[in-house]
Amino acid sequence: MSIAGRPQAVMSNPRADRVKEVARLAGRPVRLKRRLFLAEGPQAVREALTAHRQRAAAGQAPVVAEVYATEACLDRMPELADLAATVPLRLATDEVLAAMADTVSPQGILAVCHFLDQPLDQVLRSGPRLLAVLVRVQDPGNAGTVLRAADSAGADALVLTNSSVDIYNPKAVRSTAGSLFHLPVVTGQDVDALLPALRAQGITLLAADGYGSVDLDVLQDHSALRRLGGNPGAGLDGSLPALEETSAWLFGNEAQGLSNQELAAADYRVAVPVYGQAESLNVSTAATVCLYASARAQRRRENQ
Amino acid sequence: MSIAGRPQAVMSNPRADRVKEVARLAGRPVRLKRRLFLAEGPQAVREALTAHRQRAAAGQAPVVAEVYATEACLDRMPELADLAATVPLRLATDEVLAAMADTVSPQGILAVCHFLDQPLDQVLRSGPRLLAVLVRVQDPGNAGTVLRAADSAGADALVLTNSSVDIYNPKAVRSTAGSLFHLPVVTGQDVDALLPALRAQGITLLAADGYGSVDLDVLQDHSALRRLGGNPGAGLDGSLPALEETSAWLFGNEAQGLSNQELAAADYRVAVPVYGQAESLNVSTAATVCLYASARAQRRRENQ
Repeated sequence: MSIAGRPQAVMSNPRADRVKEVARLAGRPVRLKRRLFLAEGPQAVREALTAHRQRAAAGQAPVVAEVYATEACLDRMPELADLAATVPLRLATDEVLAAMADTVSPQGILAVCHFLDQPLDQVLRSGPRLLAVLVRVQDPGNAGTVLRAADSAGADALVLTNSSVDIYNPKAVRSTAGSLFHLPVVTGQDVDALLPALRAQGITLLAADGYGSVDLDVLQDHSALRRLGGNPGAGLDGSLPALEETSAWLFGNEAQGLSNQELAAADYRVAVPVYGQAESLNVSTAATVCLYASARAQRRRENQ
Repeated sequence: MSIAGRPQAVMSNPRADRVKEVARLAGRPVRLKRRLFLAEGPQAVREALTAHRQRAAAGQAPVVAEVYATEACLDRMPELADLAATVPLRLATDEVLAAMADTVSPQGILAVCHFLDQPLDQVLRSGPRLLAVLVRVQDPGNAGTVLRAADSAGADALVLTNSSVDIYNPKAVRSTAGSLFHLPVVTGQDVDALLPALRAQGITLLAADGYGSVDLDVLQDHSALRRLGGNPGAGLDGSLPALEETSAWLFGNEAQGLSNQELAAADYRVAVPVYGQAESLNVSTAATVCLYASARAQRRRENQ
């Protein structure tokens, strides 16, 4: 087996120092110190390498530090070997990959990636129209799923407060299904400084809150009326926020939601209606409904 | 400590036969044979006991077979002890509960519950307006999250095909956050028989399909136009399904989606728009967007 024409040894000792060094990225302190994290499996590595190539072309910082893969995996997916042509790629056995990875089976490939988060200023300078903010969200699967939903809804960035789960947690990375490499992520924000900074940019702060007085359905109807030219007799309430406007949605902790102080700092408290008997919405379900409502309103205005 | 005035011994041997018998419910074959499953933790047990009480009042089959709890848990949440007054309740140590449960810590309480699924005929006789159908969905967390989203959206039932994950899997039960006890569930359906049976009831079959030719946004606009009396110049396409009508949404396997045969058996193939770079939607994200779109359209008609 050769890569780019050069014969290469296959790493086969799962107890080698290099293997242990990669495996240590499962722990947050090591990740933070080295500013590296793991992307496991073909889909995540493909997205990482694609982002790496795009950023290299734009003269931006590298995404992928190194890739480890089995020969069988590269034979099966030669496009991955092509994509990895410009990064250090090492062959390893399945046993070595299993020892490196957080997943039981990384399916023959993993990438060590550089932290991707951007400073808040940089994201704000890009003129975002739709942001998702996670405040004290604790479950890595939820954080990853919200990031994937934010990507689907075309949000311009995901912002995490410093009390939220680490988005580079292997389970969070897996849950993003590659979306971590698609849109800017801002991490470690102090919520008390973040919310005024967003408002100072003219961004409307919408707190997703089961007890909110503003009904998301009403906001969607108003948006549809403006867009589709409906019967004005249905009545538009000027005191309500317009989903078409630049907004940041705030989503709180899974059990406690947003604190009273956080709710008070938002411009509006918006409730996603619950039509059935469910006591509350899963945070990723709520985020999906809210972000898609804004996306629908904003995109359609663009198309008109 | 006494329950209902009677002093009771505290189960303290995690290797006792009864403990092992409960723990075996973590396995599907044992669940299927005994038609029993585990609800773990205060929230799930509260929902189970509430459903039990409601059904008892309506002369329906029991939901809860027995409850195991620590004294500390019942002292902390006396309403749970009250709710459990009509079911066998046994005191146990934390160690015993941990040995019974699938979770690391069931937080002091768990219930052994009877299977809840209903025959398809019974659900169809109740005149459902909105159904969610899981076809070969494999991840228990996804199935549970879709059930919770279906509950939030006020769907009338969740239907699972025989190739789908077991909704009584402990992880699935946890992901429902109690919604398993809120709306009817139909399990073990053969998809080839199910789809014609639904259509024979006048239910429109909407396949959620990333490659679908019908755009969910367009369906929502049409629904809004009908509801809000918008500009007819915007144009209504009579060949498209109306979200207000009685519908069943079909959601496919996480990796493969729906098969060509399943897509062909549906009335329409509807795509949830992806505004960002995400390759695809998580099945629970897609289900949330689709079910909420139908719920909005249907509920608003009721209110007019």
